[in-house]
Amino acid sequence: MQTVEPLRSSRNPLRYLAAAIVLCASVALAGCAGHAPQRDGQSAAAPLATPGTQMADALPSWQDSAARAAILKFVGDVTRDGSPSYVRPEARIAVFDNDGTLWSERPMPFQLLFMIDRLKAAAPQHPEWQRNPVFKALMAHDAVTLAKNENALLQLLEVANSGMTTDQYDQMIRDWLASARHPTLDRPYTSLVYQPQLELLALLRANGFQIWIVSGGTAEFMRVWVNEAYGIPPERVVGTQEKLKYGMRDGKPVLVREPGIEFNDDGPGKPVGIVRAIGQRPILAFGNSDGDREMLEYTTAGTGPSLGLLLHHDDASREFAYDRHAGSASLDKAWDEAAGRGWIVVSMKQDWKTVFPAKPGSGTQ
Amino acid sequence: MQTVEPLRSSRNPLRYLAAAIVLCASVALAGCAGHAPQRDGQSAAAPLATPGTQMADALPSWQDSAARAAILKFVGDVTRDGSPSYVRPEARIAVFDNDGTLWSERPMPFQLLFMIDRLKAAAPQHPEWQRNPVFKALMAHDAVTLAKNENALLQLLEVANSGMTTDQYDQMIRDWLASARHPTLDRPYTSLVYQPQLELLALLRANGFQIWIVSGGTAEFMRVWVNEAYGIPPERVVGTQEKLKYGMRDGKPVLVREPGIEFNDDGPGKPVGIVRAIGQRPILAFGNSDGDREMLEYTTAGTGPSLGLLLHHDDASREFAYDRHAGSASLDKAWDEAAGRGWIVVSMKQDWKTVFPAKPGSGTQ
Repeated sequence: MQTVEPLRSSRNPLRYLAAAIVLCASVALAGCAGHAPQRDGQSAAAPLATPGTQMADALPSWQDSAARAAILKFVGDVTRDGSPSYVRPEARIAVFDNDGTLWSERPMPFQLLFMIDRLKAAAPQHPEWQRNPVFKALMAHDAVTLAKNENALLQLLEVANSGMTTDQYDQMIRDWLASARHPTLDRPYTSLVYQPQLELLALLRANGFQIWIVSGGTAEFMRVWVNEAYGIPPERVVGTQEKLKYGMRDGKPVLVREPGIEFNDDGPGKPVGIVRAIGQRPILAFGNSDGDREMLEYTTAGTGPSLGLLLHHDDASREFAYDRHAGSASLDKAWDEAAGRGWIVVSMKQDWKTVFPAKPGSGTQ
Repeated sequence: MQTVEPLRSSRNPLRYLAAAIVLCASVALAGCAGHAPQRDGQSAAAPLATPGTQMADALPSWQDSAARAAILKFVGDVTRDGSPSYVRPEARIAVFDNDGTLWSERPMPFQLLFMIDRLKAAAPQHPEWQRNPVFKALMAHDAVTLAKNENALLQLLEVANSGMTTDQYDQMIRDWLASARHPTLDRPYTSLVYQPQLELLALLRANGFQIWIVSGGTAEFMRVWVNEAYGIPPERVVGTQEKLKYGMRDGKPVLVREPGIEFNDDGPGKPVGIVRAIGQRPILAFGNSDGDREMLEYTTAGTGPSLGLLLHHDDASREFAYDRHAGSASLDKAWDEAAGRGWIVVSMKQDWKTVFPAKPGSGTQ
């Protein structure tokens, strides 16, 4: 596997996505070998926390470890009337990264796999692409050529994923999710949400937290499935924003997707997205990569109680193992800072009894 | 009063604000004469609708007119189980413009008065402004010079309203609202919310609606007071977005306000803001000017039941009278379209028994 460092600092906010494609082009599009996890077999219908659930029974898919104890203590402290750490319900804002924190992100963010499938689906309407060296390289999984032509690759993806209305695009996402399967895990993507996180979301919800997704992906891609998967309503999703244009088609007002990114909700963009959409500083933030560093930093710099959490993907047998040198979605600088800032690093391998739910869709229970 | 048409189509989205300043510079900054309303005396503690309130008792400050009947019928239809127009609670999204719809906007949007006051407050730190012809024109209420220098005026306002952190700016807004008074109505700005609209918000809330503000102003300016004034939480405010930059000051992570606008939530921007923030098409939209036309158009073009409402400011004795030729915040094209699209035009004069609340802050009751 080639290690092409993503160009996060460049002006095109999608460049790191291109890096992810390049990184995995030789294997991912055909199926990433090497990290195929065993099917998770321990998560038989774990009950979710509901109001009234005792803390001791909460988070059943979490090992009885320091990470679980820290979460339970925090939730107990901020909700217990008279506690010096009490936080009124309106201020109990929890923010979660999505890719790699609430569901898997390997071989590359699933939204990118969808965008590539849109490119393939659009190819018959673009015979000129057959002569396009970047399109040919993508089809041939030629990472070397893709690495040399990242901007051209992004332009192709943008063309293939624009021009339609938001309603049409929503339907394309729904159709894709209904039929697509992960290249190595051979499961629908929406079944690759993490069971321990579903239990954490349920615990927070039962304790009056307002839960938001703050993702480097787009809200449009997430909104059609996050309510069913996580129990998070569509208006609680903050993401990267693509260009939209209001206009009329066939006498009906529509929003048309245009190529280009207006706001990049990643890294230092995450606190900006939080302030714009939520207008309050969260008290809990959960991420898994350096793209979440600033979100955790901002969340845990408030004057009241706060909790920062990082998921460490160290479980090659059940999911994937990647951190400092992952190429994309690295956990490096944030990991270094965790100890000094008191952030909890959750080990997938050691802190989670199970990874994926036995059956999908349990987030809404 | 000069009539300078606002340059809404120009590239700087704040230009219409400049037009509003120019329009009223000769009178507004010292107090707009001519439309000074009488203090509203009829609103003695009108009870707000609460869950269980009979429809017949709802909206007590509304005259028993066709507008009130249309609202009550719509709310009844979409909430009555088994009704062909029934809408499940998750889809009961209502969007309200703020300036001129939920509170007054004359002589100019109150946010602009705040920004001008920030400019005055910053003047001692900018001795060079004393030689700036635009600053001098603003201080002298010289509309002719301001009209010729709109961009320079906007640049000055942006400089005076940037450079600080969002937390510092929030405090400046709070301080201003606590002491500033409307130039002609001589009341705190937050007491210039409309009593009949507070009752409508309460009726919608009691019937399971999710209420959002979708304003040409910024969410930052509204969030510090809308919960107390309207009972609308800070995360349900969509507005024009200024530039923010994440960084460290004195070792603390902060968001710094930078000059410039990233997203203009007005006119065709309102449906874009709605789709981005809410992700669902509303079923009720209430506005008062052509800047709300596309929001109403988008809302009422859904396949299910919907209601579009426009407030007509025709009440010079109790508030202000302006519509087609207002210069800024005109009600012209949207008014023309109302009949054909079935939008309800609410007459402040004829449909509202009272305009302002007897005491401020009743929105949260």
